[in-house]
Amino acid sequence: MTVRTLFPGPVEPALKARLDIEVPYRFARSAATPEGAALRTEDVAGWLEERRRAHRFQVERIPFAELDGWSFDPVTGNLGHHSGKFFTVEGLRVTSTTDGFAHAWHQPIIRQPEVGILGILVKEFDGVLHFLMQAKMEPGNPNLLQLSPTVQATRSNYTKAHKGADVRYLEYFAGPGRGRVLADVLQSEHGSWFFRKSNRNMLVEAVGEVPEHEDFRWLTLGQIGRLLGRDNVVNMDARTVLSCAPFPDAEGLSLYSDTELLSWFTAERSRHDVSAERVPLAGLPGWRQGEHSIDHEEGRYFSVVAVGVEASSREVGGWTQPLFEPKGLGVTAFLTRRIGGVPHVLVHARVEGGFVDTVELGPTVQYTPSNYSHLSRSDRPLFLDLVLGADPSRIRYEAVHSEEGGRFLNAESRYLILEADEEEAPLQAPPGYLWATPWQLTCFLRHNHYLNVQARTLLSFLTSGAVHL
Amino acid sequence: MTVRTLFPGPVEPALKARLDIEVPYRFARSAATPEGAALRTEDVAGWLEERRRAHRFQVERIPFAELDGWSFDPVTGNLGHHSGKFFTVEGLRVTSTTDGFAHAWHQPIIRQPEVGILGILVKEFDGVLHFLMQAKMEPGNPNLLQLSPTVQATRSNYTKAHKGADVRYLEYFAGPGRGRVLADVLQSEHGSWFFRKSNRNMLVEAVGEVPEHEDFRWLTLGQIGRLLGRDNVVNMDARTVLSCAPFPDAEGLSLYSDTELLSWFTAERSRHDVSAERVPLAGLPGWRQGEHSIDHEEGRYFSVVAVGVEASSREVGGWTQPLFEPKGLGVTAFLTRRIGGVPHVLVHARVEGGFVDTVELGPTVQYTPSNYSHLSRSDRPLFLDLVLGADPSRIRYEAVHSEEGGRFLNAESRYLILEADEEEAPLQAPPGYLWATPWQLTCFLRHNHYLNVQARTLLSFLTSGAVHL
Repeated sequence: MTVRTLFPGPVEPALKARLDIEVPYRFARSAATPEGAALRTEDVAGWLEERRRAHRFQVERIPFAELDGWSFDPVTGNLGHHSGKFFTVEGLRVTSTTDGFAHAWHQPIIRQPEVGILGILVKEFDGVLHFLMQAKMEPGNPNLLQLSPTVQATRSNYTKAHKGADVRYLEYFAGPGRGRVLADVLQSEHGSWFFRKSNRNMLVEAVGEVPEHEDFRWLTLGQIGRLLGRDNVVNMDARTVLSCAPFPDAEGLSLYSDTELLSWFTAERSRHDVSAERVPLAGLPGWRQGEHSIDHEEGRYFSVVAVGVEASSREVGGWTQPLFEPKGLGVTAFLTRRIGGVPHVLVHARVEGGFVDTVELGPTVQYTPSNYSHLSRSDRPLFLDLVLGADPSRIRYEAVHSEEGGRFLNAESRYLILEADEEEAPLQAPPGYLWATPWQLTCFLRHNHYLNVQARTLLSFLTSGAVHL
Repeated sequence: MTVRTLFPGPVEPALKARLDIEVPYRFARSAATPEGAALRTEDVAGWLEERRRAHRFQVERIPFAELDGWSFDPVTGNLGHHSGKFFTVEGLRVTSTTDGFAHAWHQPIIRQPEVGILGILVKEFDGVLHFLMQAKMEPGNPNLLQLSPTVQATRSNYTKAHKGADVRYLEYFAGPGRGRVLADVLQSEHGSWFFRKSNRNMLVEAVGEVPEHEDFRWLTLGQIGRLLGRDNVVNMDARTVLSCAPFPDAEGLSLYSDTELLSWFTAERSRHDVSAERVPLAGLPGWRQGEHSIDHEEGRYFSVVAVGVEASSREVGGWTQPLFEPKGLGVTAFLTRRIGGVPHVLVHARVEGGFVDTVELGPTVQYTPSNYSHLSRSDRPLFLDLVLGADPSRIRYEAVHSEEGGRFLNAESRYLILEADEEEAPLQAPPGYLWATPWQLTCFLRHNHYLNVQARTLLSFLTSGAVHL
């Protein structure tokens, strides 16, 4: 074999090591750093409160007729914006076939066929990575303002469909990069509420000075971990981006090898056929449309509602928009066991109608209990009663967090990590469930669509040090 | 933190190393072994010819009216089987928007919403992995019979929609495994011809004795590599499975780090919005239906045709079915360069209407030249003329292979790997193209939907040793 000299001159192109060996350890060091260089953890609440006062926020429910620029299509009944931008609310007919047994339903769904950017800028201060977090208002958050990624932008945002201000710090994430990319991966949003929606989850290390702004503060991963222990401080978009940080696995041991885990996942995707067809929202079977909301005829799942927003801190001063409002408080939990001394969590291969590809790995339990209260005990979801009745001594983590406040109104869930034993959660898990280490899941998060957004939130508690298993 | 003793008894569950460090080297050793324990490479052609004679094969074109069990739906015009199994031919309307510019078209598409199994059984003889290859007839193959995976089964196959014989060796791949899984991943089929079709690509190492059968032979990867240098010997399904074999990267160096490559891929997926809507085949704009075929009105791309098959070697003795017949010989090529001494290939982020997720990485060039002959030189696809006019001294690999003969009739393409220089293919590649090492691509193939089936075929030449770069 002859090797041709392609670069006969003095300049050879620089090759790189394929793997950034040191990056996971830099994240781990930040997670182990409980106080940062810019703002003490105990002062974060005060800073958020100060930002809350500095802006005027007011959100009120309005009837659909008072939506400005939004209307129901006269033919399909789909709810959309006259510009054709932002998102539409449409109908979806889902048929899920598992091992030959079919299950079908209709539901409203949010369609937004564009990829948004969720990006956190990171920078080393005193040798420790800090994350530039934003105090951001979203109309669906119960407390309106939470800690968000540096950039949280739909393409409509950054192509100016709002006709508003530029997205601050966007230049670090879109266009020719000014920083070093540490993670950049498409991950799903809620498959039960969104039709095939993905966001770009990015962690970018800034090169050089970064301009400051009063709505942004640098925090270590350890500080964010402590804040994740409180209710409704760190928003969903921040949690999913943080979960994508690479993390070191000291032992490299697990109950199943990575190949076995991937094989199980492939088998789970293969045994489910999911057909999700967009249908008109008008006359959607099982759903009723009123002046203020679209509701399931038995009052379950969620409603489509509308709000009016007055705010000075967002890209535009005020607007109206539809939101999805779930029924009741959800419960979202990983069961955890130490197996041979190594922490594992029990993942569940879930079908959600809006997933790009049939199945993603979710938490052990992810339900809104009130949707299942009419079922007999034997028909209720696996492990749900175990989580609802858990002894407090088994609870390793518990807090209430809300889902994306730009699309969902008061969509709160109790997030839990609970210890289990062999009797409650055997090593030989039921079909559709498997034990994996958090480090295995972290590696999968370098790639698209392995873990759903709820599982990613739970994983962010582990990688940020909010809980140590 | 307290560590609870979950296994107080004498038996601790066995943990495993997450990574199978030795597996890639075992594949590499097999690739370096030019002769096997069971059948000499020079005797493979004779064995295939003998199998060809042992069975009676006859394939003839028939009008649609002579299809048995297949018919056009009176409302939609979609072509399907009365059992509801196998596949349907439907219409697809694709709108692809890239950086704000929209491009739309209609086309027939094959819909088969189930995951098939493509599995190769491997076993060590004399310390070297051998692959159990099948001499299998498929009606669309130009020479009917080629080397196939051990198991090549749609779910219709193995759930007996054929009412035919069992699928041989299926028990090693479906159900509780009898072997050790070395690779198991969903990969796409042709996104231009299939609607969101994936197959499970599996390599499984057999434990214990494997029964022999006259249609199957054990070959080393090196033998298969030599056979891949010949036209139409190794079928598409075998090539895609072989590409998923893990392979060692001795140096771990590349022009872009894995994180940079993943980030570029994420950006490529993000800048394309693809909307693919199933529409009725009846009255599909731009297509004409006749008694023997459905054709593009300008005679381009492909036709839908029907064939009758007489064979004794398949699951059933004879049948009729539709096939897609492309127009003309395709050309499918990787440009390759040594960069800093390390071989790289130029991948192209391609939109195909039937992909699960907008974009996959394809070869540098993947076209049917006759579809573009009406365009002026400046409008023709990038690098196409470079490949068509390449000096023979630059050709490192060349052979004609056909695509899946169960769905495509005489779908042949010239597969090439060509050396390029800085003037022809600069390191700073055009938008949508990037230089990657074969080992980077091999790692991506542990996961779904990074590389399209043509790129996987090209990669199989490298991992099998058909060509050394």
